[in-house]
Amino acid sequence: MTQRSYRLVGICPDQVGIVARIASFIAAKGGSIIGASQYEDTETRLFYMRYVVDADSLNMDADAFRAAFDPVARELQMEWRLTESAKPKRVVLMVSRLDHCLADLLHLWRSGDLFFEPACVISNHDDLRELVEWHGVTYHHVPVPREDAGKQAAFEQTSALIRAAEPDTIVLARYMQILPPWLCSEYAGRIINIHHSFLPSFIGARPYHQAFHRGVKLTGATCHYVTEELDAGPIIEQDVIRIRHHDTVEELVRLGKDVEKTVLARGLRYHLEDRVLVQGNKTVVFS
Amino acid sequence: MTQRSYRLVGICPDQVGIVARIASFIAAKGGSIIGASQYEDTETRLFYMRYVVDADSLNMDADAFRAAFDPVARELQMEWRLTESAKPKRVVLMVSRLDHCLADLLHLWRSGDLFFEPACVISNHDDLRELVEWHGVTYHHVPVPREDAGKQAAFEQTSALIRAAEPDTIVLARYMQILPPWLCSEYAGRIINIHHSFLPSFIGARPYHQAFHRGVKLTGATCHYVTEELDAGPIIEQDVIRIRHHDTVEELVRLGKDVEKTVLARGLRYHLEDRVLVQGNKTVVFS
Amino acid sequence: MTQRSYRLVGICPDQVGIVARIASFIAAKGGSIIGASQYEDTETRLFYMRYVVDADSLNMDADAFRAAFDPVARELQMEWRLTESAKPKRVVLMVSRLDHCLADLLHLWRSGDLFFEPACVISNHDDLRELVEWHGVTYHHVPVPREDAGKQAAFEQTSALIRAAEPDTIVLARYMQILPPWLCSEYAGRIINIHHSFLPSFIGARPYHQAFHRGVKLTGATCHYVTEELDAGPIIEQDVIRIRHHDTVEELVRLGKDVEKTVLARGLRYHLEDRVLVQGNKTVVFS
Amino acid sequence: MTQRSYRLVGICPDQVGIVARIASFIAAKGGSIIGASQYEDTETRLFYMRYVVDADSLNMDADAFRAAFDPVARELQMEWRLTESAKPKRVVLMVSRLDHCLADLLHLWRSGDLFFEPACVISNHDDLRELVEWHGVTYHHVPVPREDAGKQAAFEQTSALIRAAEPDTIVLARYMQILPPWLCSEYAGRIINIHHSFLPSFIGARPYHQAFHRGVKLTGATCHYVTEELDAGPIIEQDVIRIRHHDTVEELVRLGKDVEKTVLARGLRYHLEDRVLVQGNKTVVFS
Repeated sequence: MTQRSYRLVGICPDQVGIVARIASFIAAKGGSIIGASQYEDTETRLFYMRYVVDADSLNMDADAFRAAFDPVARELQMEWRLTESAKPKRVVLMVSRLDHCLADLLHLWRSGDLFFEPACVISNHDDLRELVEWHGVTYHHVPVPREDAGKQAAFEQTSALIRAAEPDTIVLARYMQILPPWLCSEYAGRIINIHHSFLPSFIGARPYHQAFHRGVKLTGATCHYVTEELDAGPIIEQDVIRIRHHDTVEELVRLGKDVEKTVLARGLRYHLEDRVLVQGNKTVVFS
Repeated sequence: MTQRSYRLVGICPDQVGIVARIASFIAAKGGSIIGASQYEDTETRLFYMRYVVDADSLNMDADAFRAAFDPVARELQMEWRLTESAKPKRVVLMVSRLDHCLADLLHLWRSGDLFFEPACVISNHDDLRELVEWHGVTYHHVPVPREDAGKQAAFEQTSALIRAAEPDTIVLARYMQILPPWLCSEYAGRIINIHHSFLPSFIGARPYHQAFHRGVKLTGATCHYVTEELDAGPIIEQDVIRIRHHDTVEELVRLGKDVEKTVLARGLRYHLEDRVLVQGNKTVVFS
Repeated sequence: MTQRSYRLVGICPDQVGIVARIASFIAAKGGSIIGASQYEDTETRLFYMRYVVDADSLNMDADAFRAAFDPVARELQMEWRLTESAKPKRVVLMVSRLDHCLADLLHLWRSGDLFFEPACVISNHDDLRELVEWHGVTYHHVPVPREDAGKQAAFEQTSALIRAAEPDTIVLARYMQILPPWLCSEYAGRIINIHHSFLPSFIGARPYHQAFHRGVKLTGATCHYVTEELDAGPIIEQDVIRIRHHDTVEELVRLGKDVEKTVLARGLRYHLEDRVLVQGNKTVVFS
Repeated sequence: MTQRSYRLVGICPDQVGIVARIASFIAAKGGSIIGASQYEDTETRLFYMRYVVDADSLNMDADAFRAAFDPVARELQMEWRLTESAKPKRVVLMVSRLDHCLADLLHLWRSGDLFFEPACVISNHDDLRELVEWHGVTYHHVPVPREDAGKQAAFEQTSALIRAAEPDTIVLARYMQILPPWLCSEYAGRIINIHHSFLPSFIGARPYHQAFHRGVKLTGATCHYVTEELDAGPIIEQDVIRIRHHDTVEELVRLGKDVEKTVLARGLRYHLEDRVLVQGNKTVVFS
């Protein structure tokens, strides 16, 4: 964490010599590579990469590095970005009433274990105001009515609040409302949800009830990017816990909280550290 | 394993005093209880139990014990059975071409780590004859044609072979055919299948392909009782393994073999030790 | 949680008829058994049990039940206790500077997911006062000097604070001081510690450094009862997480926090629900 | 598996430009990089790498590639090797009486799931001859007496058999003898052992008994390189399974077999695929 670094993340058509081209460019600037991951997808013939360069080894700042890299990227037809490890991403957190995921993220932020800047919290209930404000974070209460007109207005207000917060990332930390398609597509690839089942099992409402009635022996949680189709976006991280025949739905809910918060924190960390590249409806996650 | 025991397994309507009634009956016969598990389902108000009694502590054999217990069971309206730990269950193993599950079960049997008697192996291919016969187990090759008439004849022959083998249990150890409903219902609660996904995800054919295309981060295997509805029977055991973005379908298949054989061996063990009681479309599994 | 119940927990020499004796006693009082676990240790010939009885099904209160059971227990030479699910155990929490375990326990308490009454928090630092007091819990700052006299005085003050708090249980939620033997023995079987390694590996100080230098591929956490011998008491719960060659000590520390807080919460839950019976230097944990 | 590739594996002092140097060299030969992993150890300032190059994309064979790379390696002061994915490594398997690991490895080999060439099996007992010879593999029975002179003679005979087999790798698949130091050092970095505990817990004999008496809640297995110090060599892979208070030592032994064979197969696979680089007494394992 103490080492200031740049992360050069990109996707381009595969061809001989890409690594040489990238690495030679970095070396020519005096850059010391402190981490490099790449993946060649044999189906699509696409090349995915993440290079981490010691910022202090370079004789230029991030913007100059970007300007210098641009011609290389064009040549390789690469979609890319360069981010700085020292710059926290701005995150809007959305939540309903259950606070286990939110409380965990706020704790990880406060203790310095997860590096981001909480822009604000938006909730359709007012229950968690005290917790959030104690952390010094702004809390917006935007109730979401059931009828269409009210719902549309609520999401327009939500959208305005999000826009004002200028977030890099939006996290649905058990926000129990379905975002409208226009909002999903506005922030495509930047909205992260935690779903309380092992997707694609138990899509939609009340997954613990579904799991209970199917009699599965493990239950899980899934962290994924939100797309317009419900619970169908690219999966970032998943995990499961073992359950027993004597566990009631209430106990599944309680046991599930542990795995939900862990999986969301891990998935968000990968995203914040620019380790996740979307590959169609899947993800490449560099370790 | 050295201790000879009786397993008294039953289900009855819940009421005050059942445990006292059962335990007093056993104590009156001088029986030493070396294991007792019970479960009260609050929804159905049913009581599930498994008592293990030291056979040598009783002053009677299994049949005498059964006869003595019968009135108690009637009084409690209990469906029950008494099995003997020293008597191996007869198992018919069914397999197609992939041998990882079959080889593992035969090895566990041969090394004494899984206690059963392999009645015979039935396969729609002849590939695994050598492996099976080396273990001294009878091998039946029953090809299953694609057209209906041939298929029906094949399953009638299969059914005759099973009947002749007088099995307690039938294990589909990656038998890649769908059994006809009449065969499923004839051996209801006694056919165990290993499905190569974490059910209810990826029901049906080619689950590893489905998992690959959905981009899940864990894949799994499910051991369940076979019912007339495909891959929908009561689940006995499940487990998962972590996969990575660079794993191809072929690697998922290979990685999955480990978890398939482990989950099938565990599920079958629970069944052979009379730890599994079916509860609607779920199972109670006593540890 | 809604069902009020009594937990009858005991250990006695094994003999034929114990279950019958206990279950008949409960049935005679009209008690409905909603959970029963037992274990016969074949080495020591001891019988361990935990019975959960629906309180509303009994025609007597807890004290009357205790009085009625006493002669049965004497007859069976049983060490036993009867606790009430509706009565929260009083817990003293001790902590140093790292707050991940404490914050998690306070959150679980506040959200109703872990049922206990935080009597107070005692810390050798003042850092976590704000967090604790925000939860409405009393915070005692008792610095622990390095020299013997000061240390002895500090632990006498600690002991006085504990005594005044009248706790059922003391939790060392990353309290980085070694308690003196006299304090350990005063609360034998009631002090729970979380050790940040997979015991018995990496006993003592800086276990993550030890794990890093040994090059293990998994690291873990252990929740155990504190005895006079360091990190050697009966283990209640353990778990591990996978680590990679590129994880630094700092990352092990961070990754370990997740498993520490999970393992402590699970172990404490088992203890609070009277599921843990000490068996020499081991534990029986009823699920 | 179908793609023929070269694996270029090396360790050298870290400096700016290594990746550029390697990748440019490969690109200059027309080589298509289909996998690249690297790791910079910040303590030792060493650089570890594994490049996988599509063999068919190169205009030269392996020896020509080696000759061409040699000057680059000298320049970088790199210790390196180039292996061919199409050339199976020759493996000598050593075993005592328990056959679960051996049977699993032979099965994986026979089914094509693990790519190696079993040179021979050496055992201090004659029990597993039939199993091994059925697989068409040579079996050597070399009894190991208890007294020193006999033991020395036995290991000289063992050493001669190993030398004659010209192995790349020696696997101790539950070979219950301690190899003499001179044999360990002769094949340093090439002897792989499976130890039946989660090292460094329970070093030496009867680890399941040790685990049972300590009362751990998880038990494990460790795959590591053999060094002269018992059970202290670099760890390649580990895993654990959950155990319960009612599990006897015999059950730990049985449960442990599953994790032993899985961990050995995984560790050996990493080694066979040249994913493991020794780093002092630790390993870098590229995924």
